[in-house]
Amino acid sequence: MTTSTALNPPQRLLCGPGPSNVSPAALAAMQQPMLGHLDPDLHEILSEVVALQRAAYRADGGLVLPLQATGTSGMEAGLANLIEPGDVAIVAVCGFFGARIVEIARRHGARVVEVQAELGEHVPNDRLLEALDRHPDARLLAVVHAETSTGIEHPLAELGAELGADRDVLLMADCVTSLAGVPLNFDAWRIDYGYSCTQKCLGAPPGLSPVAVSERALERIRSRRAPVPFSFDLLALERYWTERPAVYHHTAPILQIYALHEALREVVIEGLPERWERHERAGRFLQDTLRARDLELLADPERQLAPLTAVHVPEGVDGKRVQQRMLREHGIEIGGGLGPTAPPIWRIGLMGVNATLEVAERVIEALDAVLATEPVLASAA
Amino acid sequence: MTTSTALNPPQRLLCGPGPSNVSPAALAAMQQPMLGHLDPDLHEILSEVVALQRAAYRADGGLVLPLQATGTSGMEAGLANLIEPGDVAIVAVCGFFGARIVEIARRHGARVVEVQAELGEHVPNDRLLEALDRHPDARLLAVVHAETSTGIEHPLAELGAELGADRDVLLMADCVTSLAGVPLNFDAWRIDYGYSCTQKCLGAPPGLSPVAVSERALERIRSRRAPVPFSFDLLALERYWTERPAVYHHTAPILQIYALHEALREVVIEGLPERWERHERAGRFLQDTLRARDLELLADPERQLAPLTAVHVPEGVDGKRVQQRMLREHGIEIGGGLGPTAPPIWRIGLMGVNATLEVAERVIEALDAVLATEPVLASAA
Repeated sequence: MTTSTALNPPQRLLCGPGPSNVSPAALAAMQQPMLGHLDPDLHEILSEVVALQRAAYRADGGLVLPLQATGTSGMEAGLANLIEPGDVAIVAVCGFFGARIVEIARRHGARVVEVQAELGEHVPNDRLLEALDRHPDARLLAVVHAETSTGIEHPLAELGAELGADRDVLLMADCVTSLAGVPLNFDAWRIDYGYSCTQKCLGAPPGLSPVAVSERALERIRSRRAPVPFSFDLLALERYWTERPAVYHHTAPILQIYALHEALREVVIEGLPERWERHERAGRFLQDTLRARDLELLADPERQLAPLTAVHVPEGVDGKRVQQRMLREHGIEIGGGLGPTAPPIWRIGLMGVNATLEVAERVIEALDAVLATEPVLASAA
Repeated sequence: MTTSTALNPPQRLLCGPGPSNVSPAALAAMQQPMLGHLDPDLHEILSEVVALQRAAYRADGGLVLPLQATGTSGMEAGLANLIEPGDVAIVAVCGFFGARIVEIARRHGARVVEVQAELGEHVPNDRLLEALDRHPDARLLAVVHAETSTGIEHPLAELGAELGADRDVLLMADCVTSLAGVPLNFDAWRIDYGYSCTQKCLGAPPGLSPVAVSERALERIRSRRAPVPFSFDLLALERYWTERPAVYHHTAPILQIYALHEALREVVIEGLPERWERHERAGRFLQDTLRARDLELLADPERQLAPLTAVHVPEGVDGKRVQQRMLREHGIEIGGGLGPTAPPIWRIGLMGVNATLEVAERVIEALDAVLATEPVLASAA
């Protein structure tokens, strides 16, 4: 049996669709002495994480905690808790992650009504409201606030306003690429369930899914009849995260929670508006510079996300080869299209500590250098 | 909005039922440069983790990978994949974690047949085989190899031998407190699904659940009709962990995987038999010393686990107070009883880097010091 050799991974500037590089403070926190999951001193830290996460989501009521799993599980936990078999769920689909909501909702027994838009577009809110008019019994309306596969931002504030307080439907929003990078206001936008990840605009390593649940959603969950998977049982998780003495549910991923604590502190210290603006400046600079090089962006410019930019691979260029050369020659990760039906694109993320003009310039310089020495394929010559 | 203060947790010697202290090499690995989840260099690391984990489980065939979640989710993933609604599952229950298997199996639609034993005992294999004779259609037989709530080790090798190759039932084993601490041989013992955690005998931080799945179990999973939760879809996870190019499923908790890589390397370098023996020596020394102080152990001595020792709190002593004083005065965590029905016990774990005579002596010295100055409650005076 080989014992392998000790890990020795190369340095990377992580400018794909996530993970982004971990903030030094979050990384350092993982070297702090580890407490047990039932240690009262840890429980104080948990309470602080909840308070900080409330600030990041702008969610005062309901339940806020980081799920002990990745963003995809945050999506699944929401669907598993909010839907019961046979319920109607209306899902906006304009990319990979909208389609993933559909798939997971079906696994949990939902009757899904898909409302689709082309890649690079968003699903207009009036089409979602029409679907809701046709299915007034719908339990859930799900949208992707920041569609990581295309770089589209959904007009979520407007959707919340148009839904209003009267409608009974629960609003779920995928905030994986938006939390702490793009304006987001859980309470004011009438969101009932939001989920995110730690490794994008928050600047912590991947492994947790910060979620927020409205009081209305909690009431619905409390009255459900069908069981939910134990791992995603939000009411049981609430007893660990907020009841004191805490009720054991699972052994919390303690060092990940340390990292999240520090990452969230950095968000609050920087200030949410300032952090959103930093992401905005870096992303717009990248996008303007790419356009100035005659590169075409995938997303509708009116709905272009700041933290994530999808770029069409120019005709005749081997996009995968360019990604590999960025990695091997410049130590920079950029992403490609996601899933088998994606068009040839690159996806460039400027998130967390990487949301700066300096990092944007490094990516552009490397891309310039690679493209200048790439052969144009015969078919396009 | 408060920003809290930077984390500053106290030092702890973690000798409860887990987590144990993280091995220095595993901790250091988390500071290595983070790669993206689709980086080819990361995928080499994933392949090494799988190979090392196969060695730790002694599992050559089937599917082996660490689930991106904690041990409880490893339990749930097994039940969710192996059971379809209406299936019969026979579950051995002699403590908290056997009872948890029952609860989670029911959430996933199983008709559960419980075979119970008293706390501190194990469920004899012949009673499990009798239950199987009464329910020849049972799809699953589940046991807890190392019952962390009581310190009981199930005779799992014997169960596998008695089941033999002819019976169709799948054997699931909770190896949360046994993997890398107690003899375990996945292939030879006819186990079909094993799950563990990273934070006990392996010496990594909590956050992943190393699982092993037999070829027979995989065949059963491939032919199932009911969907499984996406997060726990073992066939989809297989495509990320073993197919190349890897198929995206979720953003892997990369730093946790780094830590597991190094922790598993340490297991293989030390040697499994040597590591088992180290846990055995430390545990037996602790148990002998506690008995010499007239403290009574909960578990049947014939089935006493080495890594985890449950001790009856002596009459008239406030067990919770003793735990708190161990923590506050000596920086040592020991556990209490788990769940509302547990008797007054302490649970002492000597796992991973803590499975040494030196650590056992530190725990005993601290316990001696605390007990010497504890008032005996009036009721027992």
